[in-house]
Amino acid sequence: MERLEKQMEFILEVDKVKKIVRQTYLSDASRKENDAEHSWHLALMAVLLKEYSNEDVDLAKVIPMVLIHDLVEIDAGDTYAYDEAGAKTKQERETKAADRIFGLLPDDQGTWFRELWEEFEAYETAEAKFAHVLDNAQPLFLNDASNGRSWAEHGVHKSQIYKRNEHTSEGSREIWEYMKKLVDKHIQLGHVIDD
Amino acid sequence: MERLEKQMEFILEVDKVKKIVRQTYLSDASRKENDAEHSWHLALMAVLLKEYSNEDVDLAKVIPMVLIHDLVEIDAGDTYAYDEAGAKTKQERETKAADRIFGLLPDDQGTWFRELWEEFEAYETAEAKFAHVLDNAQPLFLNDASNGRSWAEHGVHKSQIYKRNEHTSEGSREIWEYMKKLVDKHIQLGHVIDD
Repeated sequence: MERLEKQMEFILEVDKVKKIVRQTYLSDASRKENDAEHSWHLALMAVLLKEYSNEDVDLAKVIPMVLIHDLVEIDAGDTYAYDEAGAKTKQERETKAADRIFGLLPDDQGTWFRELWEEFEAYETAEAKFAHVLDNAQPLFLNDASNGRSWAEHGVHKSQIYKRNEHTSEGSREIWEYMKKLVDKHIQLGHVIDD
Repeated sequence: MERLEKQMEFILEVDKVKKIVRQTYLSDASRKENDAEHSWHLALMAVLLKEYSNEDVDLAKVIPMVLIHDLVEIDAGDTYAYDEAGAKTKQERETKAADRIFGLLPDDQGTWFRELWEEFEAYETAEAKFAHVLDNAQPLFLNDASNGRSWAEHGVHKSQIYKRNEHTSEGSREIWEYMKKLVDKHIQLGHVIDD
């Protein structure tokens, strides 16, 4: 039972990700979403939007990757996409968190999750590129649905969105085209600042 | 783009599942969890606990199944596990919801999700049985972590938990053994009523 005890400890520890609040509002703008809700949404989108990945991707890798990609934020906190000061210390904070959190699991599963997280962060494989498409597209879709509220609150510029998405077309040209149209729409509406 | 538009409509519609509140508290008992958080937790548990399924299961089926199993509650609402009056009308309400919600998707994906949901509800295949193990075990694990709060609030009896879990051992004997020990512990603690 020692193996199951370790798995259970991890399963209960990661419950905390339900309390990591992001900067993105739900589609009805009633409140901000948390990392567990975000990760559920990405996993579902992975299933539905796989056909738009430039390269064929293995969902048996993409789905666990998106389910765990934000767990390090339990210790490291959510670093907002356009927080430059936070970005500087992000890697160190998150590596330390990965050591602790994935270290709770039995070695084989802990190593596998750690590698999946590092693969996501390295942004090199087809699966990591597609996971990042989802991770960038989902908040953009919610921002669109919630009338650009988060963009407006943070005074976000078009160049910031484009910088964050500089590799999105490497994962999915079609989804990036769709995203660009939404950004243009919100520049017209005054929710995103053109520059 | 018509296909992507339909997929996007579904992706935004199901955002509402983040507002369907369940009766289970988070592990720290600070608030109740919602269906999106619950479904994220089940998908992660499917990956980690697959080895305890009595029969070999295909995660390519189990994971989408648990990601979508509660979407019908967007229209039908959450029926608490021990709400007998609600249980009587549950099927009719949920079937109508499935028609509408899965009907938003392109036909191939809508049909696939509908079939996955029906397979889950029918409780016959190895994948459906394992998905139900997760769906029953996860709130029990959270109830244990949150000091039995939801059980105590609802005056839940051991016989109700056993009735709900009458098929759990068909999906995983080991997880059911683990769950039974937790129930016994909370009978001792006075959070679950022995009968």
